[in-house]
Amino acid sequence: MTLRAPLPAPFRGVVPPLVTPLTAEGEVDVASVSRLAEHLIGAGVHGLFMLGSSGETAYLTDAQRRTALEAAVDAAAGRVPVLAGVIETTTARVLERAQDAVKAGADALVATAPFYTRTHPAEIAGHFRRLRSGADLPLFAYDIPSAVHTKLGRDTILELATDGTLSGLKDSSGDEGSLRRLLAPLRAAAPTFSVFTGAELTVDGALLAGVDGVVPGLGNVDAHGYVRLYEAARAGDWDAARAEQDRLAALFSITDAGDPAVMGGSSSALGAFKAAVHLQGVIDCPATAAPQIPLGEAEFAYVRRHLVEAGLL
Amino acid sequence: MTLRAPLPAPFRGVVPPLVTPLTAEGEVDVASVSRLAEHLIGAGVHGLFMLGSSGETAYLTDAQRRTALEAAVDAAAGRVPVLAGVIETTTARVLERAQDAVKAGADALVATAPFYTRTHPAEIAGHFRRLRSGADLPLFAYDIPSAVHTKLGRDTILELATDGTLSGLKDSSGDEGSLRRLLAPLRAAAPTFSVFTGAELTVDGALLAGVDGVVPGLGNVDAHGYVRLYEAARAGDWDAARAEQDRLAALFSITDAGDPAVMGGSSSALGAFKAAVHLQGVIDCPATAAPQIPLGEAEFAYVRRHLVEAGLL
Amino acid sequence: MTLRAPLPAPFRGVVPPLVTPLTAEGEVDVASVSRLAEHLIGAGVHGLFMLGSSGETAYLTDAQRRTALEAAVDAAAGRVPVLAGVIETTTARVLERAQDAVKAGADALVATAPFYTRTHPAEIAGHFRRLRSGADLPLFAYDIPSAVHTKLGRDTILELATDGTLSGLKDSSGDEGSLRRLLAPLRAAAPTFSVFTGAELTVDGALLAGVDGVVPGLGNVDAHGYVRLYEAARAGDWDAARAEQDRLAALFSITDAGDPAVMGGSSSALGAFKAAVHLQGVIDCPATAAPQIPLGEAEFAYVRRHLVEAGLL
Amino acid sequence: MTLRAPLPAPFRGVVPPLVTPLTAEGEVDVASVSRLAEHLIGAGVHGLFMLGSSGETAYLTDAQRRTALEAAVDAAAGRVPVLAGVIETTTARVLERAQDAVKAGADALVATAPFYTRTHPAEIAGHFRRLRSGADLPLFAYDIPSAVHTKLGRDTILELATDGTLSGLKDSSGDEGSLRRLLAPLRAAAPTFSVFTGAELTVDGALLAGVDGVVPGLGNVDAHGYVRLYEAARAGDWDAARAEQDRLAALFSITDAGDPAVMGGSSSALGAFKAAVHLQGVIDCPATAAPQIPLGEAEFAYVRRHLVEAGLL
Repeated sequence: MTLRAPLPAPFRGVVPPLVTPLTAEGEVDVASVSRLAEHLIGAGVHGLFMLGSSGETAYLTDAQRRTALEAAVDAAAGRVPVLAGVIETTTARVLERAQDAVKAGADALVATAPFYTRTHPAEIAGHFRRLRSGADLPLFAYDIPSAVHTKLGRDTILELATDGTLSGLKDSSGDEGSLRRLLAPLRAAAPTFSVFTGAELTVDGALLAGVDGVVPGLGNVDAHGYVRLYEAARAGDWDAARAEQDRLAALFSITDAGDPAVMGGSSSALGAFKAAVHLQGVIDCPATAAPQIPLGEAEFAYVRRHLVEAGLL
Repeated sequence: MTLRAPLPAPFRGVVPPLVTPLTAEGEVDVASVSRLAEHLIGAGVHGLFMLGSSGETAYLTDAQRRTALEAAVDAAAGRVPVLAGVIETTTARVLERAQDAVKAGADALVATAPFYTRTHPAEIAGHFRRLRSGADLPLFAYDIPSAVHTKLGRDTILELATDGTLSGLKDSSGDEGSLRRLLAPLRAAAPTFSVFTGAELTVDGALLAGVDGVVPGLGNVDAHGYVRLYEAARAGDWDAARAEQDRLAALFSITDAGDPAVMGGSSSALGAFKAAVHLQGVIDCPATAAPQIPLGEAEFAYVRRHLVEAGLL
Repeated sequence: MTLRAPLPAPFRGVVPPLVTPLTAEGEVDVASVSRLAEHLIGAGVHGLFMLGSSGETAYLTDAQRRTALEAAVDAAAGRVPVLAGVIETTTARVLERAQDAVKAGADALVATAPFYTRTHPAEIAGHFRRLRSGADLPLFAYDIPSAVHTKLGRDTILELATDGTLSGLKDSSGDEGSLRRLLAPLRAAAPTFSVFTGAELTVDGALLAGVDGVVPGLGNVDAHGYVRLYEAARAGDWDAARAEQDRLAALFSITDAGDPAVMGGSSSALGAFKAAVHLQGVIDCPATAAPQIPLGEAEFAYVRRHLVEAGLL
Repeated sequence: MTLRAPLPAPFRGVVPPLVTPLTAEGEVDVASVSRLAEHLIGAGVHGLFMLGSSGETAYLTDAQRRTALEAAVDAAAGRVPVLAGVIETTTARVLERAQDAVKAGADALVATAPFYTRTHPAEIAGHFRRLRSGADLPLFAYDIPSAVHTKLGRDTILELATDGTLSGLKDSSGDEGSLRRLLAPLRAAAPTFSVFTGAELTVDGALLAGVDGVVPGLGNVDAHGYVRLYEAARAGDWDAARAEQDRLAALFSITDAGDPAVMGGSSSALGAFKAAVHLQGVIDCPATAAPQIPLGEAEFAYVRRHLVEAGLL
């Protein structure tokens, strides 16, 4: 296991949620994971988030998850922290994934509220407390109601940040107003707590509001763009930040590649991210995991056109 | 009817959705409407939005709606435009409200997608087209899925902006990412189209992204704050804009005055807005319309405390 | 106003929610309302429900609602009770419709929970209490979460049935399990309370469970079928009831006439009901109200084919 | 592995979804699994469903799932079939659970649509097809939108029943109308296909409509009652079936034991089932899995009172 420094607190910057490159047979393509990690680190990102929603974690077996995570930790080689998604329905299962992540050398864990089952704020708080005491790594809460169908409450997050259960939040709720109301009390109560937005289309506004960083799925495709956006915002150059965000918002159109009449949103968006990274020569094969519907030739041409327009090909 | 200039295009600035002051008996308090309008215009707002969700339009009879709208038009006296919500389930009913608004002297209409019934994008487009051709006033689309349970599609808005059906959009969807994707193509296709956000907690980010203005319910309580925020953003002073927004986000806590175990979100938020404006001496009576639950003494004390903290009392 | 006997308690049987026949210009076709009412009464129905969701009440102006209701009351001529939907966003508005219904000679009112706004069980209870004390007619609660996005709680219904606020319930929630849990305590606490299901595809099971009757939209098209189903169930002939329900479930396929890619569910289902009643020669024109999308020739042929298969043409 | 006869087709009857008894330390209590299985078989049930939602499968590790399933297969000893839930987010993960189930000696698999991710009917069909070809056991679809947030379409089920992918359906959607529309075409196209309802409060109506059986969580507590209900329905004694269902609907009140202000629906309902089976002396410990909130003394007294009223203690 690589020796590594503790995660900075607050941890900040651009932390892309890596797609998990697969072979045509559906296995994790370790060499492509390495190349993707290298490519992103070379672009200046501040961390790697493995096994998130963009990483198709819901589609991977536990062994595949371990393989992909280990490949990323090896590739990072301590240059940037590697955060590991530990996405399972409830506590005992998340803790098993957490043990895997510890063994693989991850620097932090990212867990959602329980899903599939009906839950409650008191149960969610207990869930995160059990995770923190059961695994010796900093813990980030992943607020993603579109997947787990529960929104983390402001009170819950504030309480768990204040008592040290949580080291950070990845907010993919899309509820920017709620996040804004949370930031000031959070800063007062837990100054080293990290807030990352997953809302990759409004990063300029989120950084203006005071978040520490962004976890952009589109960062797989244009990490340089997100790094420029982040640096512009840190420098207070909001016109440059906005212009960069506008460019990235146009590029985000690649996620509409697939026709919603014939495939789901995951097939289209993750298919497009992988197609783009493949067209850029970073990963060998653009396959997504079953039962997602693969993009066809027309969709690939659509993605390619947008990459050219964005100056990425 | 007051002579009035055409609505500027694009129309811009801070346009509060006025609460509708009621007497203890539940009738529209015309004198308080006038005082509120005068108070807001004095604070520098750029328009008045009557009969929106914050105006309790869903609780008012048609006669009450007319009374409130006429009072605001009289009070504005042509100094700022008055936009009129025409909130009804479907086309024929909205058109009746539109005739009332034309007679009352409103400067523009604000209509939602059909609600109560199951609808479709093609029906929504037809709805707005019929509204535009049936009423001789500029038409704004009001995107408020929390109330109508349909999100206006980007394609629909773009199509209706391009062909001149819509003059503007009031976006209360909370979906800032979707709005960001819409802004650039909208600017290209319909340069005079106005985009207002109803997301009163993230106005700095929305103005950075390029919206034209904001329709803040909290603007009833602190119009000066929203005007300062808007002016700072127009001047490119984003630090000042953020600081003002942070202050307003703290003030927004008044909307939590009511206990969710005993009343709904409307009772709490609209009750708090009215309590605040009453405590400021602007309206005579803080009553909300039945069957909303009135705030009690403890809740009034809570609102008062926040007003004092915000320097408003 | 026609002299009329009080509504039986409990009121029982088949009470179709009449479609509102329109002219090609979109006005209420009074002669067709009369013919439809006559047709249904001739088939043995036990009451008429005007201005419900199937009656396109959300699409009609207040004047059109009055016209349609008066035509039905005239046509019924006291032979069966006429229930009037009073579907508006909140209390004061519903009370205005209730006054119209009283004047038109309706025998009972049918009201939903507040909609468009955010509400709460305590507010819903207050809403129904104010309606009952403000209008001198028996009051039915209309539980239709698909339209109003709130489910009436079992406790609320039980409380309002017990204290005499409500005379009955029209349950279109589709939550048959919740209804089953309600029936026994309701019978014990309020023996004359009427429970009607709006779930037109499972009427045999609902009658077995103990409901008093059904409000079937498909009853516009095959009232004889629903009357036979009801009579079979009353006679304890459950095999006959099931067979009739199975036949009606097949006929219900007409509601799929419209392609969901080009129109909403209301356009398809209400369009099909009107097409069927028109093809049967009962109403003059199959038009639905704007902005619904009209069915085309292929859809009419589809409806006709199902009517023939069902022995209705 | 026990030798076993093929699953009857259609498979019919009462198939309770067993709770998974745990020790106070949270491990699977094998002896209690055996006693519960024996108790249910003694009551005349026609099969056992392990690792469903009532079995807390979302809370168990893979090892715990295997332990619980093996214990049930051993206890059943071929007397009744054992169905195994294979509840995972997507295809590859479900297939791993399916291999475990095959090894453990299960007689059939029960799988949901993908969850956590955004999916599409074509992807759902592909999911079930891959499961069927990847695991050599009859496959049941588990339609449970409350957990997976997707409703299985009638067309999808019909297609997969017709081509032999699916052997049956466990319908926990609560959408009885949709199920009714499916039954007739399903019978015509796939006469040996089994339809089980999970709607334990309306089993009489569902059996009248033609389903083959029921998977009642409450069957853990009163299996004799569900067997009597099933037998009465098979005998055409619908009055007896209804009376039994009414008694069971009253007993179902135990699921309200927990206060929704302090715990989630799963904690309350599963806690009550386990409390009841523990109070009946069948399982040693009523503990539910973390992070669910345990029932307290008052809640146990509430459950006990209902058991006494139902003649079960």
